[in-house]
Order: sequence, then C-alpha cells, then structure tokens
Amino acid sequence: MLGLEGQDIRQSNFGWSPVYVDSNLGVLSIGFMLPDPDEAVIWRGPRKKGLIKNFLKEVYWNELDFLVVDSPPGTSDEHISIVQCLGATGMDGAIIVTTPQQVSLIDVRKEINFCKKVGVKVLGVVENMSGLSQPVMDFKFVRMTETGEHIDVSEWVREYFKEKAPELQDLIACSEVFDSSSGGAEKMCREMGVPFLGKVPLDPQICKAAEEGRSCFIDQKCGVGAPALKIIIEKLIENNEFSRVLLNNAYAS
Amino acid sequence: MLGLEGQDIRQSNFGWSPVYVDSNLGVLSIGFMLPDPDEAVIWRGPRKKGLIKNFLKEVYWNELDFLVVDSPPGTSDEHISIVQCLGATGMDGAIIVTTPQQVSLIDVRKEINFCKKVGVKVLGVVENMSGLSQPVMDFKFVRMTETGEHIDVSEWVREYFKEKAPELQDLIACSEVFDSSSGGAEKMCREMGVPFLGKVPLDPQICKAAEEGRSCFIDQKCGVGAPALKIIIEKLIENNEFSRVLLNNAYAS
Repeated sequence: MLGLEGQDIRQSNFGWSPVYVDSNLGVLSIGFMLPDPDEAVIWRGPRKKGLIKNFLKEVYWNELDFLVVDSPPGTSDEHISIVQCLGATGMDGAIIVTTPQQVSLIDVRKEINFCKKVGVKVLGVVENMSGLSQPVMDFKFVRMTETGEHIDVSEWVREYFKEKAPELQDLIACSEVFDSSSGGAEKMCREMGVPFLGKVPLDPQICKAAEEGRSCFIDQKCGVGAPALKIIIEKLIENNEFSRVLLNNAYAS
Repeated sequence: MLGLEGQDIRQSNFGWSPVYVDSNLGVLSIGFMLPDPDEAVIWRGPRKKGLIKNFLKEVYWNELDFLVVDSPPGTSDEHISIVQCLGATGMDGAIIVTTPQQVSLIDVRKEINFCKKVGVKVLGVVENMSGLSQPVMDFKFVRMTETGEHIDVSEWVREYFKEKAPELQDLIACSEVFDSSSGGAEKMCREMGVPFLGKVPLDPQICKAAEEGRSCFIDQKCGVGAPALKIIIEKLIENNEFSRVLLNNAYAS
C-alpha cells in the first residue's frame, strides 16, 4: 500500500530504524522482518505482545508529530497490548473505522465500549465503503440475455452517450452498496456519544492508488475519495486542536 | 445476519444446544452468551481457545452434514486452536475468502501457507467484493457543480431514460471497484496450486438480505449475487464429491 515491499528494517546506534516512505513518513511492519513475504506468522498472543512492545520501545522513532498504529478488528491481544504499552505516554485516542451495515456496526459498538472500558478516548468513527461513486463513463455496461449470459455493450453505450445523450456524459453514478437504512455509523455515533468524522465512498481510483503506493493527494485522480478523506482529516484536526502546520506537512507527502 | 439477535443458547441433557434458524441450520456464537450485545469481549488467546474448545466439545450438534467455522482473518490463536481441536476429526479443509486487490492477496497467501504448514487442505479460494454489478435504473445520479457540490438528478435521469433512451433502461452497470489488474485471486490460485472457486460481486441486494436475515436463495431479488454463490457451491460439491442431496437441502433453507 505504501510501495515498501522488500525493504528491510535497519539497526542504528539508537535502535531499530523505521523504513521511510518519505522524510516525513516512517513505517514499521512485521512484513519487513520476514525472509519470505508469503510466509504465515503463526503466533499466539504473547509473542504478538512481545513484538508490539519492541516496535514501541526498541525503535528509534525520532521526534514524531503523529504515531498511527493500524490494528486488526476485534478487542483482543493486540488491542490490550497496545493500550498497555502506550497508556503511560498519554495517547490522544482511537479512530474507529466501520462499514455502513448493521453487521459491522454490531462489532464497532463493542470496539467503542472497549475504548471506554480501558480509558482510551474515541477521536471519532469513519464510515468506509460508504457507497460507490464513479463517473458514468467509467462503468462497464452489460446486457443480460434470456439465457442469463452477460454481453459487454460498453463501447456501444459510450457511443450512444456521445451521439444521442451528451447530457448524461458528465454525470456521476452512485450506489449505496451496503444497506444503511438503519442510519449507518452516523446514527450509531449519536446513540453512543462519540464524534462522527465522515464517510469515505468506495472510489476505484483510491483503491488503485493504494495498490500502486501513490498518495491520493498528489494529483487530481482520486476526485471522489480524496476530498472525502480531507474533510475527515480537517475535522479530526479541528476537534482535537492538533496543529494545522502538521496537517499541511501531511498533505505534502 | 441470520436474524438471531437476542436468542439464548439452551442447556439440554446432551450439552449446550445451538440456536436453530431452521430445522436444518443451527448456529452458535459468543453473541448469544452476552447479557449486553454491545459489550466488548476483551479476551486474550487462552480464553478464546477455551471457548472454541467448548463450542466443539460441549455442544450437542446432533448429526451434521456440514460444520462451518467462520474465523477472523489472520493466522493466530483462533486458527491454531480450531486446527488443534478439529484435527483429530478429519476435517475436509478450509475455504479462504479474499477481495481482489494485492493488499488482500498478500495476507491470503499467508493464510494458504498456514493451511499447508498445519496440514489443512485448501478447498478453494473465493474472491468476494469482485466488482459491483447493478441495474442502471437502481443507481442514484448526481451532477457535480463548479464549486464541487453534488446535485441529485436521479429523477431527471430516469425520466430521460424512459423517454429518450429506452434502449439503456435494461442495462447492468459494472464497476471493478478494487483494482484487479494484477490478476486477482484467480491468478494467485494458479501460482499457489489451490482451487479457485469463483467471484462474488458486491450486490446491494445480497447486502440487504444479509442485514434482514433473509436467505438470498428463497426469491429472485438477489439476481446478481445469488447465481454467483450457486456456481461456487456447485464447484465445491463437485471438487470434493460431497453428496448432492445435502446441496439441495441447503438451498431449501
């Protein structure tokens, strides 16, 4: 996702050194420590806890504006260990990411209660995969035959739009994808008294940028997803009175 | 997802009794054991292992055609415990679910190697969220103004289609969503020598059915997703010579 495959962690006089994407973005992952990237890391909790502790204590992070720990879903070993290791440093809090359906929100309610129980402030909830928005002309179009086969008619549709329906060419088509008729993350946040930060739609261009290790902010390609992310970042900065200088640094990379 | 919220596990003479969706589908989940559904289960590995063992050994499952264990992503406590507890019974194998992008496939390669290492046969890999397919008329359409605002023009577009472009009304619009230019799960399966079972598109109707606890096979609503699932089930039955009678039983519920 950051284009760092195959990189190694280096040992410096001060401890392990993170791998740098850019002068202002360092990364550590167990992926850097495996001889074979496909190898499974078959570890039970205590070993995972040991590594998390090493990543926080034995790594020379230098001066940091933000330390972001990307954790798996759940409320188990990783989460307990992170809270135990970082608790003393006075961490700002947790950002919780969900998708819009009830089946996800059920789990996210548990995560929020975990944070409340262990005394971690919930900085806010992000609703990811919040519908798909894409320019009409970027879709593929198929016609289903009577026997259930799909025939690709994209070329024909694009010609049709150009010649007969030019008014439709610039439209953006949106699908809800996941059912959010129950109110989604926004309603859950109101019910649980935590900030709602915003929605990020499924944007194929953002997915592509992530695959290629490109930032979605350096060009105009991610026209649907990048503005949604910016709104969330702005809100996070504002709500928590983080320095705006840091924000501008972040966009630059 | 199965419409079982608020149900309790019962104690019978033979042990714990699963909660039945239907006479041929019993379910057990830690969710049934919590007094408050929002409460976080803050357990480290050993307690999770204990519960998994109880679910397998202390529950009166009666005669089963299939026992499906839905596990979280990863190769840690849950997976090791399941393999240890079920190893002696001669389990058929593991079905691995992924999404099409490289960032998911990197993790799934590790899962496959985990299975190989612990001697669990990989029955196959399913590519989920494999693009979005939806009838054109089910989309919402917006026009972006010069200031970046979105104006909903869905009504106008639907009228336009009806009056001026009726040929377009029956089309299905497809978006790749996640970048699969690297070949997706199918290519990975070829490389790793495991069966590829098929692709399941993001189908808003299936998402809705799951939210409401409805089977996608009982009516024609899930016209895009249900046929995709059927192909996968058929392949699984065929590859592994499972009894076809069982398959028909399964569709009935």
